[in-house]
Amino acid sequence: MASPASTQTCGSANPESPAPPDASKLKITHSKTPKPLQPVETLRFGQTFSDHMIVANYDPETGWSAPEIKPHGPITLDPSCSCFQYGGNVFEGMKAYLGPDGKARLFRPDLNMRRLERSCARLALPPIDGDAVLELIQRLVDLERRWIPKESGYSLYLRPTVIATKPGLGVMASDHAMLYILAMPTGPFYRVLKPVALFAVSENVRAWPGGTGGHKIAGNYSPGFLPQQTAAEKGYDHILWLFGDDRRITEAGAMNFFVVVKRDDGDGEFQFDMFDMYHLLSVEGLDLITAPLDGTILPGVTRASCLALAGDPEFQKESSLRLHPQEMVYTMSDLEKWSSEGKFLEALALGTSVIIIPCNKIGYEGKDIVLPGAGLGPVGTALRKKILDIQEGRTEWKGWGVVCP
Amino acid sequence: MASPASTQTCGSANPESPAPPDASKLKITHSKTPKPLQPVETLRFGQTFSDHMIVANYDPETGWSAPEIKPHGPITLDPSCSCFQYGGNVFEGMKAYLGPDGKARLFRPDLNMRRLERSCARLALPPIDGDAVLELIQRLVDLERRWIPKESGYSLYLRPTVIATKPGLGVMASDHAMLYILAMPTGPFYRVLKPVALFAVSENVRAWPGGTGGHKIAGNYSPGFLPQQTAAEKGYDHILWLFGDDRRITEAGAMNFFVVVKRDDGDGEFQFDMFDMYHLLSVEGLDLITAPLDGTILPGVTRASCLALAGDPEFQKESSLRLHPQEMVYTMSDLEKWSSEGKFLEALALGTSVIIIPCNKIGYEGKDIVLPGAGLGPVGTALRKKILDIQEGRTEWKGWGVVCP
Repeated sequence: MASPASTQTCGSANPESPAPPDASKLKITHSKTPKPLQPVETLRFGQTFSDHMIVANYDPETGWSAPEIKPHGPITLDPSCSCFQYGGNVFEGMKAYLGPDGKARLFRPDLNMRRLERSCARLALPPIDGDAVLELIQRLVDLERRWIPKESGYSLYLRPTVIATKPGLGVMASDHAMLYILAMPTGPFYRVLKPVALFAVSENVRAWPGGTGGHKIAGNYSPGFLPQQTAAEKGYDHILWLFGDDRRITEAGAMNFFVVVKRDDGDGEFQFDMFDMYHLLSVEGLDLITAPLDGTILPGVTRASCLALAGDPEFQKESSLRLHPQEMVYTMSDLEKWSSEGKFLEALALGTSVIIIPCNKIGYEGKDIVLPGAGLGPVGTALRKKILDIQEGRTEWKGWGVVCP
Repeated sequence: MASPASTQTCGSANPESPAPPDASKLKITHSKTPKPLQPVETLRFGQTFSDHMIVANYDPETGWSAPEIKPHGPITLDPSCSCFQYGGNVFEGMKAYLGPDGKARLFRPDLNMRRLERSCARLALPPIDGDAVLELIQRLVDLERRWIPKESGYSLYLRPTVIATKPGLGVMASDHAMLYILAMPTGPFYRVLKPVALFAVSENVRAWPGGTGGHKIAGNYSPGFLPQQTAAEKGYDHILWLFGDDRRITEAGAMNFFVVVKRDDGDGEFQFDMFDMYHLLSVEGLDLITAPLDGTILPGVTRASCLALAGDPEFQKESSLRLHPQEMVYTMSDLEKWSSEGKFLEALALGTSVIIIPCNKIGYEGKDIVLPGAGLGPVGTALRKKILDIQEGRTEWKGWGVVCP
């Protein structure tokens, strides 16, 4: 397959004229059959949708159409469209939380919107203005306010998606696109915060320098399904993706991955009681390590927030943790060494849907590295609490919680 | 994002019970508004569809539905479907040619069907039986016979596609799928067989070991659009994808790539006349080199066929070419060396849509390697002619041309 040279520049993103989907032109068609709310304890991630969605279409002649809020329902496309044939789809995951002040808040949505812009540009989709998308998201949150559960840990999950809608075959950029934003009430991803087990994989590789692993692109996800099934058959919950001959640690499933390691300067101390639970004696001088953004790692919002908190003197003081955030290359050999030396204290998987969850086991080549503790350790607990406090509006922190007007 | 462990095996392909879409249950709904045929000279690749398509749906409870031939038209899906969110889509490209005997032929469709099965398995899509899909394709070709142009070089292009239709979010395999088969009359991809110029790229990487580059998966294609636009802006037609620190040659655009190199044993000789056209004096002892199937290279049907022909004594005799097919790692440095020594004779891009086209220029780091000749050289010409002869039914060859009953 090839694309004729004469049409190769078709669909080129033009950053000079971003032509945003214009929220001031928003049309609203209310659902005539609003659904009853579901008891929060029956919510499963991504299975219950709110009454409405936002849709806008991009045409190369006319730019973005006036966006429309309309009842959540199916979309209709020609089967030759680029979204089916060549995988030119990107998305974001965000949550709106209801605060004790009754206001709905998004968490650092600017980071999601900049990433959405970069994802679209990477796949040569039509240009999109993240600020305009954010305004639409806020309008949807406002309209769907009744769908935001009031319970702590619950939120309205938002899924802005851009798909390539150019009809007709030919391997070339799509100069047509559809933006849609879905909303769904959701609870804690895991009802009980029990640790997950990871299965380290090097035969399958999630991302590569020069690939798309640093962008939130649909095609990054489906290649992980088969290794994930293999891991599940072996009794593990998620893949720990390795990279390279030196078996670098990259991501866990579709989440970023952090480890907490006692520093050689020696002042970090944990102690365990008879129930194998953490007791904090004097936790200082701990490295909070994650892989650097070299193009193979998704620049996660929770990832960036944990790194920023870990290095912040105010957070360190209030949490009694002296953390050293480290974006660095580290390998399975490092994990094995730290584990054998008793320095490997916590393993954490991070993402918008899970926030922070603990990992207690990493299987690789027939052996398991077993982590101490039966839940989140002190670092994971402090970071998770702080982030939830900000997300749910109990704490103001550097403008991270953004109120929906 | 993550998927709850309890649902991880959902959608698992089960090769023990392939449950094929059953051609014997085919339902046919004829189009009430058959379209007039278009003059062949106005056909553009992938832009004109025949009247009908085949559709079948997979449900985890009931397996594949009875397939249906119905008018080509839009499909309707929930916007949360896996095909939009996680890119679990695969496809094939095939052609049906009308022979001088009036029969419609497919070219080695078994290779496409086995590849389709492997692509589905790689993305953990529901199991599919390629033989059953082939039977459906043959039924569609039979019904759409009037759409196959009679002119040499023209054919009915077929696009079997499987998309992941599981609704609801959650990063896990899709246990729902839709198979559809589109048909479109098509002519030579390039009307004039003028050589294309390639732009060698190493910052962007098409595929990597442990990735999906060896499968025909939608998500492999859209990441190439942006580099392709950059190449077009610089005046090149396609990307030549490099891989690794040693700048290995892999593929050209969405095509396999071959080079013809004079062997050191010295009996391959070209001569050029005053019009810079090839004259064949004594072409023997030529290496036909392409990258090995290490997981980063699509196992193309045209690629496999050219390698088989090149090593076949009968083809060598009838073409007066003594070719040595070589699947081997080779690099930009090799191309530069062979070029400087005058041994680099032909560069060819191959695929179902283009068959074989010549490349006359490879740009890399500000310099161009320029190939001799103003069109296909003797090797490209002989291979292209033989393959077209088989495809169009003028020659019987090892069962490669498969008549549609």
